[in-house]
Amino acid sequence: MSRRGKILLVGLGPGDLEQMTGRAQAAIAAAEVVIGYRTYLRSIAPLLTGKTVVARDMAEEMARCREAVARAEAGQVVALVSSGDVGIFGMAGPLYEHLLERAWTPETGIEVEVVPGVTAASACASLVGAPLTHDFCAISLSDLLTPWSVIAARLEAAARADFVTVLYNPQSRRRTDQMREAQAILLRHRPSDTPLAIVHAAYRPRQSVELTTLERLLEHDVGMISTLIVGNSSSIAQAGVMVTPRGYRRKYDDLDAGVKPGESPRHSLSSGFAGWRHALIEHAGRHGIAATARMLGAPPTRILEALIESPASPLGVVRAPNPTTLFEQALHWPNALVHLNLTQSPATALEAILELSDAVQRQGPGADGAPATLSGPGWRLELPWTAVVSAYQVSDHHQIAAWFQSASGETLLRIERPR
Amino acid sequence: MSRRGKILLVGLGPGDLEQMTGRAQAAIAAAEVVIGYRTYLRSIAPLLTGKTVVARDMAEEMARCREAVARAEAGQVVALVSSGDVGIFGMAGPLYEHLLERAWTPETGIEVEVVPGVTAASACASLVGAPLTHDFCAISLSDLLTPWSVIAARLEAAARADFVTVLYNPQSRRRTDQMREAQAILLRHRPSDTPLAIVHAAYRPRQSVELTTLERLLEHDVGMISTLIVGNSSSIAQAGVMVTPRGYRRKYDDLDAGVKPGESPRHSLSSGFAGWRHALIEHAGRHGIAATARMLGAPPTRILEALIESPASPLGVVRAPNPTTLFEQALHWPNALVHLNLTQSPATALEAILELSDAVQRQGPGADGAPATLSGPGWRLELPWTAVVSAYQVSDHHQIAAWFQSASGETLLRIERPR
Repeated sequence: MSRRGKILLVGLGPGDLEQMTGRAQAAIAAAEVVIGYRTYLRSIAPLLTGKTVVARDMAEEMARCREAVARAEAGQVVALVSSGDVGIFGMAGPLYEHLLERAWTPETGIEVEVVPGVTAASACASLVGAPLTHDFCAISLSDLLTPWSVIAARLEAAARADFVTVLYNPQSRRRTDQMREAQAILLRHRPSDTPLAIVHAAYRPRQSVELTTLERLLEHDVGMISTLIVGNSSSIAQAGVMVTPRGYRRKYDDLDAGVKPGESPRHSLSSGFAGWRHALIEHAGRHGIAATARMLGAPPTRILEALIESPASPLGVVRAPNPTTLFEQALHWPNALVHLNLTQSPATALEAILELSDAVQRQGPGADGAPATLSGPGWRLELPWTAVVSAYQVSDHHQIAAWFQSASGETLLRIERPR
Repeated sequence: MSRRGKILLVGLGPGDLEQMTGRAQAAIAAAEVVIGYRTYLRSIAPLLTGKTVVARDMAEEMARCREAVARAEAGQVVALVSSGDVGIFGMAGPLYEHLLERAWTPETGIEVEVVPGVTAASACASLVGAPLTHDFCAISLSDLLTPWSVIAARLEAAARADFVTVLYNPQSRRRTDQMREAQAILLRHRPSDTPLAIVHAAYRPRQSVELTTLERLLEHDVGMISTLIVGNSSSIAQAGVMVTPRGYRRKYDDLDAGVKPGESPRHSLSSGFAGWRHALIEHAGRHGIAATARMLGAPPTRILEALIESPASPLGVVRAPNPTTLFEQALHWPNALVHLNLTQSPATALEAILELSDAVQRQGPGADGAPATLSGPGWRLELPWTAVVSAYQVSDHHQIAAWFQSASGETLLRIERPR
């Protein structure tokens, strides 16, 4: 009777044997065959005595997976290893992809166990201070398997939303433009003196740690086994360590205040969820929905929805059951104005206002998906009606307005009439 | 002579002793005093024999830091422990904050060593399959120290940029609205059947793993020691495992194609950086800058900058040394049109066009920071000039246009005249 084979996907940690988990060491000890990238296998040489070792070159991930599966299907216990955590930019992904393509199931196929490890983000952060105490993201700058446009969009989002950002695979001999471009994207949203750590070969013989600034990145040596940690807007560098404080004390105004005397340590901040909603209602009542959205960096739909659920609000907000009907009505409001307002950029209040006089030509929106078009003397507005996913009627004592919102929660246009 | 004290910041890993690193076990063994949250200390009880143990309750982080520093300053070796990785939402942050406030330096103060561990993202992913093979982010839903508005903005960004998203501290007895709101934000950008893993008490006695969908999150039990992993747009659930494939084969059109036959495994994708730039130039030449920006989810400034560096482009792009001068010139172009174009929403092409006839009133931009205002019969446009950080002149064989861009790279307006 043949034994059931097994693949142990093992994360080796950053490099030093001491940084492996007990389970990872035990998994290697239990394996008959160890498969991995040549360089990483060298770092665990003392554990490999008496084992079949399959050392592969870089970029042969699929060959490693096929070999691991073939051997496990023949009844062997195979350790397939990655440096760091095998689940983060490691071999667990390609192996499971390969198995699922072969219609593997845990019941019918070989046994698989993922043994996690210390990922580069944790290892590098530990050598730098405490840069990851807060929300962070990990982005690989390798465009060998991911289109650059996807990577660039993620860098943009990470920079905008103030994530501490860990860059894996920042540069290789052949890939140098990517890091320069990543720096340019980050510098559009972060100050040039943003703390930046360059950690090279963490927990390996040639380890080095440099603390510099985002602006000076290109002056430093960065290679294949370097990892970059880019601070967020509150990260500081002091005494040779980089720390991202949790407090936010100095960053926000009254709607976003940090812990104050009198706050309870086990309860949400007064600027936490309940407090946020309360402050939002007050702020929107005083300064309007668009200004509140700009201030919070939230899409206006989020503010509108919060107000609907808040009968305490001085703004009456009603979700329109049918956006087209509301639009048709609003086009005939007396003295109505169409506002286009670029609320997505916090610093920006570019506003165009178009008057809905009798001279205005109106067309659509057509039931066939034709765009709604309005045109007056010297202006024209075209709105693809398919882009409108929700609409709200908002009233206060000054005016009534109809808001037309996109899928991402941005305001496409609003039509206002004085009350 | 008094001995120099030391604080070892130790990441215990997810819970099981086997998931600790060798260095973490050695650090506990070397410490005379171990300080930590009561529950976590219980999980390492076998390592604590003969040591002074300071078990603290939740939310007493600062008290733990003060005690650790006081003891180390008195010459003791102190292990200050966190579950998971001590650097990620762990004690390394508050401890370093506390030290830096006291003007500590590594040379003059106590010795500090951070011993990294397996963070919850890695531990939970290992029990689920391979959800984190790609770029991901970690967000804590706890608003005890972070304002909700910051958390919500990060959820929004993560969802938009298609990060696999790991949610730490999703819910407690007192905090239940946060998870519901997080789900609502994610559902605005991800399909309702997006794979979602709920991992409870990873590597601890009551471990459970549920694979469900984003839409059904609220039907499941989620508690203090649960972690959520929300897939990105390519994550799949099959055979009881969740995997995020690296290929992107099925997701993108020709500008974003995955690995094709003939691509070299050690080189950037043809849709990688160089290929991306090449395709971008072609696409922008054929479909225009705004459409290319929409398609890539990139801000138009990024496209404009890429075109400047690309003499092969059929579009002539020149960065204006002085945006105000270009604006003043463009206002006097014959037959010019002002375009306002909401390019930031991929699905949206809302466009307003204003004619610059002789009847148009022009004002500013003032040297005193007064906004530029244009008004014609039935329309008015107001642009705070401080929001304009760059401007470009773009020409092809049809027309010449002036583009005015915000700090975040979005187009505030462009003025076009036929050629």
